[in-house]
Amino acid sequence: MSVHAYGAHAGDQPLQAMQITRRTPGPHDVQIDIAYCGICHSDLHQVRAEWPGTRFPCVPGHEIVGHVTAVGAHVNGFAIGDRVGVGCLVDSCKQCDSCAEGLENYCDGMIGTYNFPTADAPGWTLGGYSQQIVVNERYVLRVRHPEAQLAAVAPLLCAGITTYSPLRRWHAGPGKKVGIVGIGGLGHMGIKLAHAMGAQVVAFTTSEAKRNAILALGADDVVVSRNREEMAVHGKSFDLIVNTVAAPHDLDAFLVLLKRDGAMVLVGAPASPHPSPGVFNLIMQRRTLAGSLIGGIPETQEMLDFCAEHGIVADIELIRADAINAAYERMLKGDVQYRFVIDSATMSA
Amino acid sequence: MSVHAYGAHAGDQPLQAMQITRRTPGPHDVQIDIAYCGICHSDLHQVRAEWPGTRFPCVPGHEIVGHVTAVGAHVNGFAIGDRVGVGCLVDSCKQCDSCAEGLENYCDGMIGTYNFPTADAPGWTLGGYSQQIVVNERYVLRVRHPEAQLAAVAPLLCAGITTYSPLRRWHAGPGKKVGIVGIGGLGHMGIKLAHAMGAQVVAFTTSEAKRNAILALGADDVVVSRNREEMAVHGKSFDLIVNTVAAPHDLDAFLVLLKRDGAMVLVGAPASPHPSPGVFNLIMQRRTLAGSLIGGIPETQEMLDFCAEHGIVADIELIRADAINAAYERMLKGDVQYRFVIDSATMSA
Repeated sequence: MSVHAYGAHAGDQPLQAMQITRRTPGPHDVQIDIAYCGICHSDLHQVRAEWPGTRFPCVPGHEIVGHVTAVGAHVNGFAIGDRVGVGCLVDSCKQCDSCAEGLENYCDGMIGTYNFPTADAPGWTLGGYSQQIVVNERYVLRVRHPEAQLAAVAPLLCAGITTYSPLRRWHAGPGKKVGIVGIGGLGHMGIKLAHAMGAQVVAFTTSEAKRNAILALGADDVVVSRNREEMAVHGKSFDLIVNTVAAPHDLDAFLVLLKRDGAMVLVGAPASPHPSPGVFNLIMQRRTLAGSLIGGIPETQEMLDFCAEHGIVADIELIRADAINAAYERMLKGDVQYRFVIDSATMSA
Repeated sequence: MSVHAYGAHAGDQPLQAMQITRRTPGPHDVQIDIAYCGICHSDLHQVRAEWPGTRFPCVPGHEIVGHVTAVGAHVNGFAIGDRVGVGCLVDSCKQCDSCAEGLENYCDGMIGTYNFPTADAPGWTLGGYSQQIVVNERYVLRVRHPEAQLAAVAPLLCAGITTYSPLRRWHAGPGKKVGIVGIGGLGHMGIKLAHAMGAQVVAFTTSEAKRNAILALGADDVVVSRNREEMAVHGKSFDLIVNTVAAPHDLDAFLVLLKRDGAMVLVGAPASPHPSPGVFNLIMQRRTLAGSLIGGIPETQEMLDFCAEHGIVADIELIRADAINAAYERMLKGDVQYRFVIDSATMSA
């Protein structure tokens, strides 16, 4: 079926309206009318060919929410009309240890929601900046939030799970002091989630101007990371720091804030390396520097259910599809609180 | 009491015989006749003032074994004649969380066995290159190995515990594949310990010539790390890598050998930084880069008992005290299999 979409024909061209084709649902497929799609910073990197291997036309988007419009004959878990989500992956090998453990995000054969090989035309996956998507039911998530919150649920599918997974894995909860570095799309979700888990939450930002807005998200404290004295107050006190900053920066400034056995988990990958972290800072208090990549399908469902239960959604700015290019420019200036979400209804206008 | 020792009066002078004073044992003290003391690479760095803050005269040595010659009135755990060891620390605050948990090695008030402040003359601790030491009983270890093995037990007090602690903490054992990087004093102990714990052990060396000797230590496989093809065979296969190399090197070459959720633990700290590790290598398989510093007193005792039970000692070359300077030169060339140990009896000759 031919559907409306927004994408780019080359890395140096703006996104524009285009028509793309979606497959007829197979026996295990769920066909979804996309209501909203969040804009992730990685969309911008990929569609502008700042990351290698972009295939054009490129339709980004992996923070997808909508409603089921058709299901294949063997689909048991979903019915027409269901509110559903699709995140960063739409397929995997289903046979490796990672798939068996529900960690499809670490499968070597993971198929991302856009720019990954597929049998469908045009030969690579096309993402959520479109009006419809067809996905194997294994990779479809149930959304239990009320309909009115649906647009603000979209960013949970990437920004939410990317912060939820390390918070869970590294035991954020009551009695734990958790730092969130970088208060953008990911970081603002990290604050909300860590707070709901019962942790003491300290947000690190480079911007004094954001202090009150960040406190309103649920942070117990806000530290301006350029302020050495503010940083020093928190020395050796954190159990966990989730660092969402993708730009190269001084990791040591945060490592020294970890208590013994504390961990800093990086969820952003800079295009050029961070300055090399000091080995003494790892050795002297037996600290850990780790990485984490989105999350598996079961944990993504767990995260969505947790958010529904706690009334958590993203703070968003809803935009028309023809404002995507302008939104990218604003993202580059950090001018968004905290996530742009595309209203897919505006694609057919 | 005045005792024979070997130390340096300045960073650019060789070590020489000297007399030092040991305190009269207090109520909680154990007085020890030192039989043997291992030579750790950090001794060399400190006594040559390659690390900051060296106080002179400096008497290095923190791999100490010997026999109890006197005990204070309140000492319960030791009696005259006992075989004992002293490792890298001789005091700590005894009040912080780390001390309470038996992780005195992470106490901010840890007093190292040499070059740390003390009330005793000359105002800083003097180490095991001497014939006697007096230590609070909390920091004295029991040696259950037979007397004939005593010299080869000495390196367990630093090289042994430094590798044992991360192997235990990161669950080396049956079914686990463990890499040991750098087969010197620490690394050769890492191989023996990981093997005795039941892990599959792969040793990484830069020297093809060492292959057979390393296999004899208990490694299941030896990889010459400069050989890309040999390295590639082990991609994404390790649960744990303990990296003992203190010289700056490419950490990514080893990070990519970790399977999902695998950890590389650094126990050596280079004077200049390693090249910055690739964040993608941490994120993509949720890998961990961590540090570890020697071990606490209870775990050091556990390690000594484990070694006694499994018949594990270091491979050593016993030297006279007047050969220490020559031994340092050979260490710098990697010409030792795998640890020099000083025969303290030669100090009074």
